Formats: sequence, C-alpha cells, structure tokens
Amino acid sequence: MSVTAPAGFEAAGVVAGLKSTGKPDVAVIVNRGPLKAGAAVYTSNRAKANPVLWSQEAIKGGVVEAVVLNSGGANCFTGAFGFQTTHQTAERAAELLGVGAIGVQVCSTGLIGTGDEAFRAKVLDGTEKAIAALSADGGEDAARAIMTTDTVPKMSVLRGDGWSIGGIAKGAGMLAPGLATMLVVITTDAVLDSAQADAHLREATRVSFDRLDSDGCMSTNDQVTLLVSGASGVVPDETAFADALAEVCRDLARQLQADAEGASHAITIEVVNAASEDDAVEVGRSVARNNLFKAAVFGNDPNWGRVLAAIGTTEADFDPYDVDVLMNGVRVCSGGGPDRPREEVDLTPRDTHVVIDLRVGTATATILTNDLTHDYVHENSAYSS
Amino acid sequence: MSVTAPAGFEAAGVVAGLKSTGKPDVAVIVNRGPLKAGAAVYTSNRAKANPVLWSQEAIKGGVVEAVVLNSGGANCFTGAFGFQTTHQTAERAAELLGVGAIGVQVCSTGLIGTGDEAFRAKVLDGTEKAIAALSADGGEDAARAIMTTDTVPKMSVLRGDGWSIGGIAKGAGMLAPGLATMLVVITTDAVLDSAQADAHLREATRVSFDRLDSDGCMSTNDQVTLLVSGASGVVPDETAFADALAEVCRDLARQLQADAEGASHAITIEVVNAASEDDAVEVGRSVARNNLFKAAVFGNDPNWGRVLAAIGTTEADFDPYDVDVLMNGVRVCSGGGPDRPREEVDLTPRDTHVVIDLRVGTATATILTNDLTHDYVHENSAYSS
Repeated sequence: MSVTAPAGFEAAGVVAGLKSTGKPDVAVIVNRGPLKAGAAVYTSNRAKANPVLWSQEAIKGGVVEAVVLNSGGANCFTGAFGFQTTHQTAERAAELLGVGAIGVQVCSTGLIGTGDEAFRAKVLDGTEKAIAALSADGGEDAARAIMTTDTVPKMSVLRGDGWSIGGIAKGAGMLAPGLATMLVVITTDAVLDSAQADAHLREATRVSFDRLDSDGCMSTNDQVTLLVSGASGVVPDETAFADALAEVCRDLARQLQADAEGASHAITIEVVNAASEDDAVEVGRSVARNNLFKAAVFGNDPNWGRVLAAIGTTEADFDPYDVDVLMNGVRVCSGGGPDRPREEVDLTPRDTHVVIDLRVGTATATILTNDLTHDYVHENSAYSS
Repeated sequence: MSVTAPAGFEAAGVVAGLKSTGKPDVAVIVNRGPLKAGAAVYTSNRAKANPVLWSQEAIKGGVVEAVVLNSGGANCFTGAFGFQTTHQTAERAAELLGVGAIGVQVCSTGLIGTGDEAFRAKVLDGTEKAIAALSADGGEDAARAIMTTDTVPKMSVLRGDGWSIGGIAKGAGMLAPGLATMLVVITTDAVLDSAQADAHLREATRVSFDRLDSDGCMSTNDQVTLLVSGASGVVPDETAFADALAEVCRDLARQLQADAEGASHAITIEVVNAASEDDAVEVGRSVARNNLFKAAVFGNDPNWGRVLAAIGTTEADFDPYDVDVLMNGVRVCSGGGPDRPREEVDLTPRDTHVVIDLRVGTATATILTNDLTHDYVHENSAYSS
C-alpha cells in the first residue's frame, strides 16, 4: 500500500516507454485532501536537474496536489528545453487533475543529459496514462515505476493514533550526504499545516537519509516530498508524529542501504562518546567514504587501521591515540593500539557493525554505508546514470 | 642512480626480513655533506605514525644527516613501544654514522598496527645492515627496498647548471590530498640552507604530490624529505632550482599515478578559467574523488553528467549551467548541456584527459587521479595495509 495506505491518496505507475526494458517508468501520486499541505527537501548539489529547479520554486506555496515522477531520464543539463518539459509535465498533470500547476511536484531519475523531444513526449503521455490509472491501492505500482537499478521496490507504512504515514523510495546508487540521494514520496492523513510538515520533514531527513552515505556521490535529482491530506481528521501528537515520520524515513533508508548497487555488506557505523552530534556525524562519514576501509570490509578484513586513518582526517574533537574501535562486537583497537586479535572478528555476515568510541563526550550518531565491491565497480562502469 | 646521482650521498637497500616475500625492506640514504641541510613535509592526517611523530620533531633543527626507511610495517598505532622503536632506529643509525640522532629522519610503510618486538629487532638489524652496505650507487637499491604494492621502483634525476636533484618514491595506494600519501626522498648537491630547502620543498609538493589524488584516502605515514649536501659547491639560481625541484616532484608523482593499485586509466583533470587556483584545485579534486565518475572511466564511458554532478558539490565560483567539459579532446558538454555525441570520445587509451572550463576567470590547476577498477577493489580487499 505504501503511499496509498493513509486516507486521501491515490497513485499509479505505468509504462511510458522511457525504460528500454519496457518496465513501468512514470508514477503519479495525488493528494485528494481535504488538506493539500506539503513540504519537500532537495539535493544540496549546485548542479540541480530541471525537475528540482521547478519543484523547489513550486513548493514555496506550501501546497502539494500531486507528484509526477519518472525514471529512464534525469532531465538534468538539458537546458531551457528540459525545464519546459518539466513545466509542461506539471501543467498537463494539473489540467487533468483540475488543480494549479504550482501544486505539482516533478521528479526525474536516470541518465544526466537525457531530455530530448522523445523524452518529453513519453513523459507527457505517461503522465496522462498514470492519471487515468490512479487508484487507492496504486502505491506499489508507483514504487515500482520509479526503480532504476533497484532490485526491489522500497515501501513503508506506519500507523499512529488515528493517523498513518506511508512512503516509497528509489535509489540504489549515488546515495550520499547533504541529502542522501534518491527520490522519496511520503504521505500522511494526519492534520498538519505546511509549516509543520516542513519542520517535521527536515528533522526526519536529517537523522535518516542524511546519514546514509553509500558511495559519497551526491545526485543532481534528489528529492523527498511529504504530502499531507488531513483525511483522518486527527491532529497528531507532535512528538508521536515526529518519531513516526523519522522511523518511516529510517526504514526507507535501511531499505536503500540493503539494496545498494553491488554491495555485499550493509555497514552500520556507530560513533559514540563524541563531543557533539556534528563531530559524531563527521567521524562516521569519514569512514563511510573511505574506499580502502570499504574494500577491506568486502574482503572480510577487519582493518581497523583504515578506520583510524580515516577519522584522523576530520576536525572532530578527539585524541587519535585514545580511541576504541569495535568490529562486530570485538574490540580490535583500544587507546590507540591493537587490542583483540583481528582473527576474532567475523565479517562474513552481511550486516556489519562498527563502533567508534571517541571517549570525549556523550554525543552519538549512526551512519549507514556499504562496502566497495567488484559488483559496484561493474554496475557503475557498465550502467550510464 | 636517483638519490645518489647528486654528489655527497650514499644509499643502500637490504633484506631485513620484514616482508614475507623476502624482498628488500630497509633503506638508508646518507648525506655526506659538506652541508647537512634538510627539510620535510608530513601527512596532515591527525592519525600520524610513530616515525612521523619522531621525524616532525627532529626536522626542527633543519639538519638531515640520514633517512632510514622500512617497508613491511607502518609502526602506526603501536603506542609507546612503537615510538621507542623509531627512536632506537634513529639512535642506532646515528651511532653507526657518528652523527646526532636528531639528524636522522625515520619513515615506515606497511600495515597499521604492526610494530612488535620482532618488528623492532628486524628494523634495527636492517638499519645496521644497510649502513654497512652504503654505496655511492645505491639509489636504486633504496628505491626497491621501500616498495610495497608498487610494481616498479620510482626514481628521478634532473641536472641543473652545475648541480643536480635526485629522488625516489614509493606509493601505489592511499594516494591522497593534504600530502599525497607516500614516502619520498629527494637529494640535491646544490648549496641551500634549510630555510631555502623548506620553502622550495613546500612549494614543489604543493603543485605536485598534493595534486595527486588516486583514491582520496590519506595515509598515516606520508613523508617527503629533501636532503641538501651542497657538494657541488654551486649556489643555484633560485627560480631554476625551484622549477627543477617541482619537475622532479611532478615526475615522481606521475610515476606513482602510473603504478597506482589496480588502475587501468591515468586520468589528468585540467581545470581552466577558474576564478582562483584554490577553486580550480577544489573542482578538480571533487571529480578525482567521485567513485561514479572513476568507475565510468574504467568502463570507457564518457559520462560527463558525473563530472557536473561532482563539481556541483563544491563551493567554487562558477555557474554549473555554463561549464564546458572536454574528454580526450571532444567537447561533450557546453553551456550546461550536451554538445558532441559521447560516441565520439575514445576512452580506450590509458592516458585520459578531462578539461573542465569554468568560464569565470584565468586560474588553472591540474589534478592527477586513476579510475576505479575491479583490480583496485581486489588489491585493497585482499591486501592488508
């Protein structure tokens, strides 16, 4: 059900011919109200695709009537023609739905530089087709239509006290920081205004998608959109809603990590006893981005020296010679020197847990990443994205 | 000849049993004077190995009598015992050479965490053995003794007007910024004081090793040492010497790039028409560190979208929608959109040339890097370093 689990939403995913495989490639999610509030966060990359350039202006009204998403082409660096394509997509959807174009968010994913006349025609036709196919149980179809190299659709549902939250996500590569690179649509039938939606979405993404750093590469097309229908008629407890939204985001982030391109390990890097949360994030991210460490995990090699070499490049507050490192429960390094023998560490399970104890404070943060594998290199050398 | 090409130097490389392969693993380079000036630059990683901790203090006197280097163990995160090992190495060399220990620089490379009693005994024995084997044509032996995963020794010689410069380098992985991770020893018989040596060395490394970024990972053990014998008796023209030293450093940097672990392409990223040199370096480095771009080059895919996605993450002054990108001479992107068809780009040659024209100023910088390959993943998952 995903995005159609909360009351007040319809969705569809259809084949528009953008993917050479003939798989679904255009999705539409519509907010039937009664509220039409919304919020979104976008890639912090300065190189933004046309759909992002459109959507970040359109969101300023705080109204989201619908989201149109396509895979099979990023419509990025496609110039004025590409921007017009996005605008026409929003206008076509708005016309068919009887709403204003400014209420339509547009998202694209695929190869940068793709956005010619054939692309435009297919996206517009696909938008029509998807709107004709809208249904109250179309959430999974929408989730499938936004897949690129994803092997499984990503969906999440969480029910609160009289309200619920649903979400879909795509993104198996280019997961990164700033905003952890992917397309996500989240819906809720709770009663919120757009300012509340915006505040909750920013906090939830900060502690979830922003802490997923699969390969350090930031996309041009990232977008996370929250649509609020208010159809439950229930004003949620603020804390309960915030917790639930963060949990849906973390659930989707973990699904993205689990399906990351070519990965053989899902690595959880937990930084503890940092002087500040920012320090903990910086330290965790430095390890998540260290190719040597990531290749070692692929080889089931508990190479804690590469952890210390990575965190030594940060400006976080700690003493590099008074740090503990645990890998899958074994303290391989303590006080800046070897502790338990590396042979005691079993890195064969897919889930890998690294704890870095900075021993200077009480703050903590967890970063999710993946190992660097032959399959990652293969997928990203053979697949143009 | 390398480091023994300039007058006033002797070198040796011997087998000390640190490498399981039985290959040479301890090198000594001695400055016979008459000057004993020297300078060095060290890794900017806060996680510094014991030899770096020793050497960066010892260099403060501006005197370098000798450098002792070992492969087969980094002596990093080996605690007080490891620091004593380094100190004893300097003292042993000093005693045998009849000089002060403070004049002995020590460098180590290999697995972090390696530095036990067996390591100490072998390093000390190797130091004795190397000093006994010192000769005026031992430069190549020294170059071979510092190799780890290097497939060839790296050596360079440049002759000026009555003086000369020689150098050796090791480092096929962990090449990175700040200081481009490796061990380098450079000798000259020109007449310079230690302040001049320091100034020239910093400028030369800034435009050479610091612009080599093979895999974005910064080592704990990097060191570039310049030894000045003054044995030519010639005071060099300052500009001529600076140019020559930079050229030797660039030559060694290119040799490191050419032998980078598992690489199938040597990629030169030339950033032109930047607002400042710092901007040009930042932009070039962002591309050099982008795994998706590097994997695309491995696959001979001229994926310019990944170049723009990478540079969009920087804070350099330029308009992402007004940038030109050339790959091996073909302008694949201009003014933020597709230009020539990607099929025109031939990425099969090992040497790959990317030009990024920022169109805002006159500054330029060139960054050297490598592609991301199956062999890189294999070497770094199977080899503990």
